[in-house]
Amino acid sequence: MSYRFAGRMGRIPESFLDELFRVSGAPGVITFAGGLPASAYIDVAGIREAACEVFDEMGSKALQYTTTDGYLPLREFIADRYRQRLGLPARPEEIQIVNGSQQCLDLVAKIFLDPGDAVGMERPGYLGAIEAFSLYEPVFHAVPLEEDGPDLAAFASLVRDYAPKFFYGIPNSQNPSGRTYSQDKRRGIAEILDGTDTVFYEDDAFGELFFDGRPRLPVKRYLPEQTVMTGSFSKIVAPGMRIGWIYAPEPILQEFNVAKQAADLHSNFLSQVILHRYLVTHDLDAHVRRVAAVYGERCRLVCDLLDDLMPPGMTHTTPEGGMFMTATLPDGLSSMEVFYEGIKEGVAVLPGVPFYVDGGGEDTIRLNFSAACEEEIVEGMHRLARVVRRLE
Amino acid sequence: MSYRFAGRMGRIPESFLDELFRVSGAPGVITFAGGLPASAYIDVAGIREAACEVFDEMGSKALQYTTTDGYLPLREFIADRYRQRLGLPARPEEIQIVNGSQQCLDLVAKIFLDPGDAVGMERPGYLGAIEAFSLYEPVFHAVPLEEDGPDLAAFASLVRDYAPKFFYGIPNSQNPSGRTYSQDKRRGIAEILDGTDTVFYEDDAFGELFFDGRPRLPVKRYLPEQTVMTGSFSKIVAPGMRIGWIYAPEPILQEFNVAKQAADLHSNFLSQVILHRYLVTHDLDAHVRRVAAVYGERCRLVCDLLDDLMPPGMTHTTPEGGMFMTATLPDGLSSMEVFYEGIKEGVAVLPGVPFYVDGGGEDTIRLNFSAACEEEIVEGMHRLARVVRRLE
Repeated sequence: MSYRFAGRMGRIPESFLDELFRVSGAPGVITFAGGLPASAYIDVAGIREAACEVFDEMGSKALQYTTTDGYLPLREFIADRYRQRLGLPARPEEIQIVNGSQQCLDLVAKIFLDPGDAVGMERPGYLGAIEAFSLYEPVFHAVPLEEDGPDLAAFASLVRDYAPKFFYGIPNSQNPSGRTYSQDKRRGIAEILDGTDTVFYEDDAFGELFFDGRPRLPVKRYLPEQTVMTGSFSKIVAPGMRIGWIYAPEPILQEFNVAKQAADLHSNFLSQVILHRYLVTHDLDAHVRRVAAVYGERCRLVCDLLDDLMPPGMTHTTPEGGMFMTATLPDGLSSMEVFYEGIKEGVAVLPGVPFYVDGGGEDTIRLNFSAACEEEIVEGMHRLARVVRRLE
Repeated sequence: MSYRFAGRMGRIPESFLDELFRVSGAPGVITFAGGLPASAYIDVAGIREAACEVFDEMGSKALQYTTTDGYLPLREFIADRYRQRLGLPARPEEIQIVNGSQQCLDLVAKIFLDPGDAVGMERPGYLGAIEAFSLYEPVFHAVPLEEDGPDLAAFASLVRDYAPKFFYGIPNSQNPSGRTYSQDKRRGIAEILDGTDTVFYEDDAFGELFFDGRPRLPVKRYLPEQTVMTGSFSKIVAPGMRIGWIYAPEPILQEFNVAKQAADLHSNFLSQVILHRYLVTHDLDAHVRRVAAVYGERCRLVCDLLDDLMPPGMTHTTPEGGMFMTATLPDGLSSMEVFYEGIKEGVAVLPGVPFYVDGGGEDTIRLNFSAACEEEIVEGMHRLARVVRRLE
């Protein structure tokens, strides 16, 4: 039997990631390769309590089919939080619930992209987005991500010359680099896009996790009708519930709703009601402050150890929030080699190559700093330093 | 701001369904238009118990990220059940968990269909499948669904003349018709497909819900390497958990896994572990027998009332299981008219038109018999009879 798969299946970049994650999950390996939030800071008791209340008070309603757009009280909570935190005039009708914000990558691409359409990306760009978008067969155009956001001259040229359907960016604590756009860059992006029909896709998975607790104003604030914003409870409550959302202008949401309904009718309703109950009976702000503080400590520890232990010529970004950073290896070192030698030494990092849609990244690695505890970070960084020094 | 949506968004059939469902949800309306399982037969106490055990024993593990293919013990449970119920040599590696089997419609289409590819459908066909497939811009070819399954001569011609990438069918208690393929037709389909490279997509959402409790052997049994089978816990445990699965040959599953990962990383893990705990600590067979018996009684009641109350010239199918049947209106009556007049009378049915990819169905309606209780069924059918007799 020969199977006739669709042409798009050949467009997914060769994935060595499954292999990498399998290898990096071996016993005894300290991993900076993944992207898990810290398990110790998931509020199991609080979520259990919310679940019991939901079963007792809603009964079978919590277990039935529901509407595609999602549980209205949860959408109201999200809209309220946008108003309070960021001063955005969000209404629940502009918000739909999805299976983690990853699903938005698939569905936004689905409603916008015909094969050959231009899509703008950061360089480096988020790997999950590259994979999801690739199945819609676009042509990627990458704009270098500087310390304070995309190179605006390159961004303007891209928009002018290729009129991408959308530009995908993560302005807050980007994955993989950990970089955050300055307010000037955000305004600059809005100015360049204003009057064009290129949409800004603002992935805000990490905006709650600034170590200083200070929210940054999103591009959506400057360009409301042209920005699709997405968010997630995976990083601030629990990823296993797979609850994220899209916040977008209504004409876009209408199409999005059609695609979401065709994709899976609606997101897990039980988790939507449990999560909502949890949110209204617990202090999310206090919880997020606790989590962000821990990630801040872990991030500083990784940065300090990189500075202290690695040979000169190895540099790294210095995130203000989120869960990831990148490091650049000393001249001539290959991240794949560091990966495989690292595994032998009992430490895993993620090679940078798959984050580059147009080649490059051979000398960069992504480091996650949320999952490992301080003790593991210290030991893991010592192992990594031995590997880098040996290969140098 | 003008939004440049993808060409595929124009391919979704004009949906009047949202409007229909909105109208049919009005207070006082008895609805046969939807597709909800009976709320009274969802085991809330059992699922609550399973949830508490999961929180207590697994802790934060139940709330973390997991693998794309799904929770291995749940996949083992599904494989075991296939072996025991249907004698299929299923292995957990051939099974992946999805967000309700609706997600398989999207992802199977995604991995197989290029624009313009041929897809075979039953006539009438399942509306949710038509919507999901449409976004991949195939050319639909419909084979008439006779009382005992597809017209085999038309099926053979379709396969020979158009070599569809796959044929989508629901052999057990089809949606919308309630019809079940005979074993002869199943073998006939397998014989026709054998040696071709057309895949059989066997949607088995209702196979556990035969009123006589007797399982029917699937097409997968006769054509294992060429059949993709999908199943769901929505109809036998609870739809709000959105847990379904695909059971397919490994080369297909590999592509499916890529598409699933890009679509949403993985399905709700909390619900996967709660559901698994529920399944291994409760008697699913006894629960399913109870549900199927109730649906059997409700189905017979609807059939009897249709026979007793409706004018001659109105006919209906007689399901052996599942949740749906179709009725054909007396000559000249329009299902849309019956719908709108029905709402005024306080009863909702679903017009048949959207189930026909090539026109037709104006004189048919779909009736759900799982959601309304006996008292509502009696009152609802009297209302419907008044409408039909008035319009006749």
